[in-house]
Amino acid sequence: MLIIEGWLHFAPGEIDKFAEAARIMVEETRKEDGCLHYAFARDMNDPDILRITERWTDEAALDAHSKSPHMAAFGAGLAQVERVGADIRLYIGDEVRRIM
Amino acid sequence: MLIIEGWLHFAPGEIDKFAEAARIMVEETRKEDGCLHYAFARDMNDPDILRITERWTDEAALDAHSKSPHMAAFGAGLAQVERVGADIRLYIGDEVRRIM
Repeated sequence: MLIIEGWLHFAPGEIDKFAEAARIMVEETRKEDGCLHYAFARDMNDPDILRITERWTDEAALDAHSKSPHMAAFGAGLAQVERVGADIRLYIGDEVRRIM
Repeated sequence: MLIIEGWLHFAPGEIDKFAEAARIMVEETRKEDGCLHYAFARDMNDPDILRITERWTDEAALDAHSKSPHMAAFGAGLAQVERVGADIRLYIGDEVRRIM
């Protein structure tokens, strides 16, 4: 299983400009084959930090996602807002246990 | 490396009751040996969902975290608010590449 976890840090208030685009991106991505989990969340201590979590079955699913029309649309929207940093990483892993 | 990812879903507005406790929990946990990442974030589409992401070096570090005084304090605070669901899972994995 592939796990993606990371963040995008935006200039103050910029996240509000693409909240609706983000909602559509999440909704469309969750319909994709191989998508096990996909969510956007705002850091509790710094709401200008967008935290991304994803789980995918395999690289083929992730590759198809990267070429999807909703990814292109969302990427175009992101290019319109001021971002001050980003760090998103891909991990390969397996579930050990449910904690809660 | 251990990766934790999951969510706690609270009754409407309950998250606001422990925002300060959550800030302290994050601050104290990030000082722990073996903590590579620890964050709380509110889902962009449903702000009553708290999303948790963590990365730890190993089980010993995670075990020490579970027994920490800040975990006990935060757990006591969580017990005071109405929760409607939770799903938090532990994964074992390795970094493949940085995406962004």
